Amino acid sequence: MIRKIADEILANGKTYDNLRVLCKTVGGRLAGSPQMLKAEDWGVKTLKEAGADQVWLQECKVPYWDRGGKDVATINYKDDKGKGLKENLDILALGNSMGTGAKGVNAQVILINNFDELEKRKDEVKGKIVFYNYPFNPRYVQTFRAYGESGAYRRSGPSRAAKYGAVAVLIRSMSGSTDNNPHTGSTAYDSAYAKIPCAAMGLRDADKLSKILESGKQVQGYLKTMGHFNPDATGHNVIGELKGSEFPDEYITVGGHLDSWDPAEGAHDDGAGCVHSIEVLRALKAIGYKPRRTIRVVLFANEENGLRGGNKYAEEAKAKGEKHYFALESDAGGFTPRAFGFTVKKEQMDKIKTWADLFKPYGVSDLTEGGGGADIGPLGRTFNTPLAGLVPDSQRYFDLHHARNDVFENVNRRELELGALNMAALIYLVDKYGL
Amino acid sequence: MIRKIADEILANGKTYDNLRVLCKTVGGRLAGSPQMLKAEDWGVKTLKEAGADQVWLQECKVPYWDRGGKDVATINYKDDKGKGLKENLDILALGNSMGTGAKGVNAQVILINNFDELEKRKDEVKGKIVFYNYPFNPRYVQTFRAYGESGAYRRSGPSRAAKYGAVAVLIRSMSGSTDNNPHTGSTAYDSAYAKIPCAAMGLRDADKLSKILESGKQVQGYLKTMGHFNPDATGHNVIGELKGSEFPDEYITVGGHLDSWDPAEGAHDDGAGCVHSIEVLRALKAIGYKPRRTIRVVLFANEENGLRGGNKYAEEAKAKGEKHYFALESDAGGFTPRAFGFTVKKEQMDKIKTWADLFKPYGVSDLTEGGGGADIGPLGRTFNTPLAGLVPDSQRYFDLHHARNDVFENVNRRELELGALNMAALIYLVDKYGL
Repeated sequence: MIRKIADEILANGKTYDNLRVLCKTVGGRLAGSPQMLKAEDWGVKTLKEAGADQVWLQECKVPYWDRGGKDVATINYKDDKGKGLKENLDILALGNSMGTGAKGVNAQVILINNFDELEKRKDEVKGKIVFYNYPFNPRYVQTFRAYGESGAYRRSGPSRAAKYGAVAVLIRSMSGSTDNNPHTGSTAYDSAYAKIPCAAMGLRDADKLSKILESGKQVQGYLKTMGHFNPDATGHNVIGELKGSEFPDEYITVGGHLDSWDPAEGAHDDGAGCVHSIEVLRALKAIGYKPRRTIRVVLFANEENGLRGGNKYAEEAKAKGEKHYFALESDAGGFTPRAFGFTVKKEQMDKIKTWADLFKPYGVSDLTEGGGGADIGPLGRTFNTPLAGLVPDSQRYFDLHHARNDVFENVNRRELELGALNMAALIYLVDKYGL
Repeated sequence: MIRKIADEILANGKTYDNLRVLCKTVGGRLAGSPQMLKAEDWGVKTLKEAGADQVWLQECKVPYWDRGGKDVATINYKDDKGKGLKENLDILALGNSMGTGAKGVNAQVILINNFDELEKRKDEVKGKIVFYNYPFNPRYVQTFRAYGESGAYRRSGPSRAAKYGAVAVLIRSMSGSTDNNPHTGSTAYDSAYAKIPCAAMGLRDADKLSKILESGKQVQGYLKTMGHFNPDATGHNVIGELKGSEFPDEYITVGGHLDSWDPAEGAHDDGAGCVHSIEVLRALKAIGYKPRRTIRVVLFANEENGLRGGNKYAEEAKAKGEKHYFALESDAGGFTPRAFGFTVKKEQMDKIKTWADLFKPYGVSDLTEGGGGADIGPLGRTFNTPLAGLVPDSQRYFDLHHARNDVFENVNRRELELGALNMAALIYLVDKYGL
């Protein structure tokens, strides 16, 4: 049966073409934006074409953060001969950040390598632009581990600096890339402190700026960002179902998130997860499989800067007393699959592990404990639903995550298809043999 | 110890920068060409910088096939209204093929889908250009399997068609790519038949041409290629050693091939294998490891269209009575590593398998039977030397194999480094604990 699924996806697969349409006709699709609605239309149409028994929109209010224009940063300093130099930095304001206003912020830049150093030098940051230059640790083979560590600077760095009077924050992008593209992503202000403007810069600029500051030179920074929140907008989770033949009231959810950051096409994050999930439904239907339980594909709204879609899905499921049997998410890119991670009970994990040899020929060589996804997390917390997440190879993910190069051209058709193939195989096994 | 190797390669690695220099200052480097000599210089310099105790050139005569200029193909046919159409095909003459002469070949094109069809229609091919449209099977998860099957059309297709009087051959490229780049590679004439010109075309052109021919239209083809052999040239295997401290006369060879096809930079094939192998030496030296046996890095000459380098290395080893303990090759690209394949005795394989858990944290999740490499094959046949080959993820390889997009930009730094890391770990284990 898995061979049949594989043949269908590898020979007749629609993931790649579906992703092309999403990326090239919609592009970036942040919650609240006009592109969000276009993406929802794409989702409805694509799920219908995939053969869903029914497709509908589940309404939820979403935040509508808007970048407001081009982000600008420059630095002024003197070279060794005392000549004034002015240079541009390639930056992106962090998601959910407050802008500087049209005049921008002008202040001295202070290099802070990590939070320990911030605490030691807290008396020096008042009135300054704090530049966090925390590195993305190359020694971790699993890049998500490096992201977990350095991500703290994006999320809580601005408020921790504001606490000591900083007027703005610049961070080194959360990436180990070889280019200079800045990587955005949500920040989270602590309401106890001023909401200061903040932006991420590319790695070459970060290396350059840190070198200048380490040499003892004084650097005057200028930052202009126009980020702001519009009133909450009405968005939707896009849902398509294959009705279960034996247990139609038991739900197996498979999904990704439809929203993506504005400067790119959200090809890997998380267009890939959307087309993966749609392909699971399409392939199972195409080969004539009649699911025992109802298989629901959910394209979640607003993962990036609010998680309102994931929360809404779990809330409504609870209100309706639905029974959620299993949920699988793909939100780590469309790269070659390597593993699935599971958050399940021990006896369920033992059963899952008996399936290991079924996946090996298709590229998933590990079934590991721990895993899921941000959008299905609320379902797990609400119902104790067993959760799983696709684990693609992570080496290239943070080269383009939340950056302008997260575009269709950087997705490989075969790698994308193999992700969908393994997901469809897992959904089939869970549906057919139970957990 | 492996963690130490990993930290050295992931934090201070030179693979990516070494590859950049090879690709961007030398580029394509087919045996016999002036670039071959430039590449040898690069190899000597880079091995010395990596810390080899000694570096030398091992001379061998190599064939010098020369493309002779731009390959041209056009088709003429009539549209449904009888209007004459002329279209260009994007082609590359096959390596080692004979050119058409300056006037080119003008003949009717016949579509032949596979060798069975050729045999059935053998009376129809005389005086025609045979177009083999054998597909690269997308159903195989391991792309090398598809290559193995379709590769027969590149290697023996021309002579099999010449046997029945064909005047030239065009083939569908051995690839599952989404673009139209043609993929070259060696053909092998059967001396019993005329050495007819032959070239590969990109997949979009192949789809277009087969569609036209399947519709019953007559297509007149024109092919001009200028391939020819110059007299054999003097090339070299580039060899660098770390002298063994306990068994200096026992050799562990680690290598890739330095030659590459002319239309690209040979980044994955096999610049990656060269910088992988050099990095093994560099990293072991950098962390202060003193090998028990002599570790030899060999950048082999002329893998692509002659294998003279691999043969020479084994011949000279035999003549000198050298003892070859183990050999490892990297010639499947610089993609994220997934496995090693071994051609070893059963008891050696059993020992190797006890190391499996040491590799898992670094991305190699399988140690499988069967494997090696074209260049170390002669060593295995001469001495029964245990052989191994690095098995990177194969999904992207045939998108760029022997095509103009096999360039540095399509190599990911982290994926490349992880290949070197796992190779260094394997060499360390074999040297330290024996087979």
